[in-house]
Amino acid sequence: MISTHPDVRGSVNESLVRAIEAAYGCAAVCHICADACLAEDMVKDLTQCIRLNLDCADICLVTAGLAARRAGSHEALIKRMLETCVEACADCAVECEKHVDLHEHCRICAEECRRCEQVCREAASTISPPRH
Amino acid sequence: MISTHPDVRGSVNESLVRAIEAAYGCAAVCHICADACLAEDMVKDLTQCIRLNLDCADICLVTAGLAARRAGSHEALIKRMLETCVEACADCAVECEKHVDLHEHCRICAEECRRCEQVCREAASTISPPRH
Amino acid sequence: MISTHPDVRGSVNESLVRAIEAAYGCAAVCHICADACLAEDMVKDLTQCIRLNLDCADICLVTAGLAARRAGSHEALIKRMLETCVEACADCAVECEKHVDLHEHCRICAEECRRCEQVCREAASTISPPRH
Amino acid sequence: MISTHPDVRGSVNESLVRAIEAAYGCAAVCHICADACLAEDMVKDLTQCIRLNLDCADICLVTAGLAARRAGSHEALIKRMLETCVEACADCAVECEKHVDLHEHCRICAEECRRCEQVCREAASTISPPRH
Repeated sequence: MISTHPDVRGSVNESLVRAIEAAYGCAAVCHICADACLAEDMVKDLTQCIRLNLDCADICLVTAGLAARRAGSHEALIKRMLETCVEACADCAVECEKHVDLHEHCRICAEECRRCEQVCREAASTISPPRH
Repeated sequence: MISTHPDVRGSVNESLVRAIEAAYGCAAVCHICADACLAEDMVKDLTQCIRLNLDCADICLVTAGLAARRAGSHEALIKRMLETCVEACADCAVECEKHVDLHEHCRICAEECRRCEQVCREAASTISPPRH
Repeated sequence: MISTHPDVRGSVNESLVRAIEAAYGCAAVCHICADACLAEDMVKDLTQCIRLNLDCADICLVTAGLAARRAGSHEALIKRMLETCVEACADCAVECEKHVDLHEHCRICAEECRRCEQVCREAASTISPPRH
Repeated sequence: MISTHPDVRGSVNESLVRAIEAAYGCAAVCHICADACLAEDMVKDLTQCIRLNLDCADICLVTAGLAARRAGSHEALIKRMLETCVEACADCAVECEKHVDLHEHCRICAEECRRCEQVCREAASTISPPRH
């Protein structure tokens, strides 16, 4: 789809495309993990996980939207948002990893967050302009 | 992932899962179509397409979030949101279909919207409770 | 601000403007109520409230965005979204009202949801085109 | 409303509350500016403004959501998001400021972005923990 964009034609940043896909996928998994945590008997122990799931989902969705809306001139903002997404995914993964033994949804979510963290870090590294 | 949810365990609504996936996919394509339209020389002829792309993307994302956050007791709201998503996808598809001869991104977006419209309609039909 | 829009100039739909403001306000209060519920000792009794807070916040934000992005030709979709928002606010208010004696944040949130429900219902009624 | 949160009780971060309010307000104005730009005859000259309006609106909404969902332990993420919002508002303001002579909506949007930039910068400065 991206390759049909008039500003792109033939020079798709594959790394950014992977980041868009990973971010949508991670947002979906975080939304599901948040709701699954809410449904657990031990929800009291999972409140921080729920918060970080919600934060991570929101940040992933905005990152994907920004990256999809790729205007040449504000790549610094896309880079910054990708870096913010890296941090959100890492924070969510650290929290989910505390619960992997008890909750399969946290295990899957942690993995998805780590994957998205990695893919967004790579995409950010392809955007060269130094911050202003 | 959905099957790990404590309230679900073994009785996943496959139709709803397909709707979640379709809605995220459709949102991504609509975001890209909106930006590709903005980059076209003839953007003036595509402003309504851009608006409906943005509306459809927003509605798809909220629908996916709601469906992922499936609490047993407000299925009426999920059903309503799926029906709203059906309408948004149809509206966006109708507009994109006007531009398929000139813009490949509109052709792909129209197809994606029609697919999401269909999948969300099916998912809505699986939710039985009559509106209150 | 709305009055500066080229398609509006002098004929602002005041009812719709009030709906936009109410929806942003309601989204903010719902976000705060959700997090305050998460922080309560009795979070286990508030999980449905948290879910409906999140649903209502998401739907309010999309409704506000759609209404702000007022293109003449898809008023049916704005009307539909306003009606969906009315339902989300009502559902969230019903749930919050169960907890008003114990939680001040639920009391404020219920009031805000009822107000947004009313304002969005009025705005929807000003949009005349029958559904297609 | 924030003062009713169990984790807050009496020690509201006023600066953060102002940032939440400013971010919702800025998102609303950016949405309206984007659509007003789309409606201008000279939309071709405003495409970058539309993109930055959309980016800024999305980032403001997520920032407000994160700040409203204030869990003690991930303040670093709130700080990072506030800083990202400062950058998005500044970028959008710079672009809007190019069009203030021709478009009143760009003038208002530029002012709102500058205000939100300032308020979010102040709020970020109140969050002390160094990045991990």
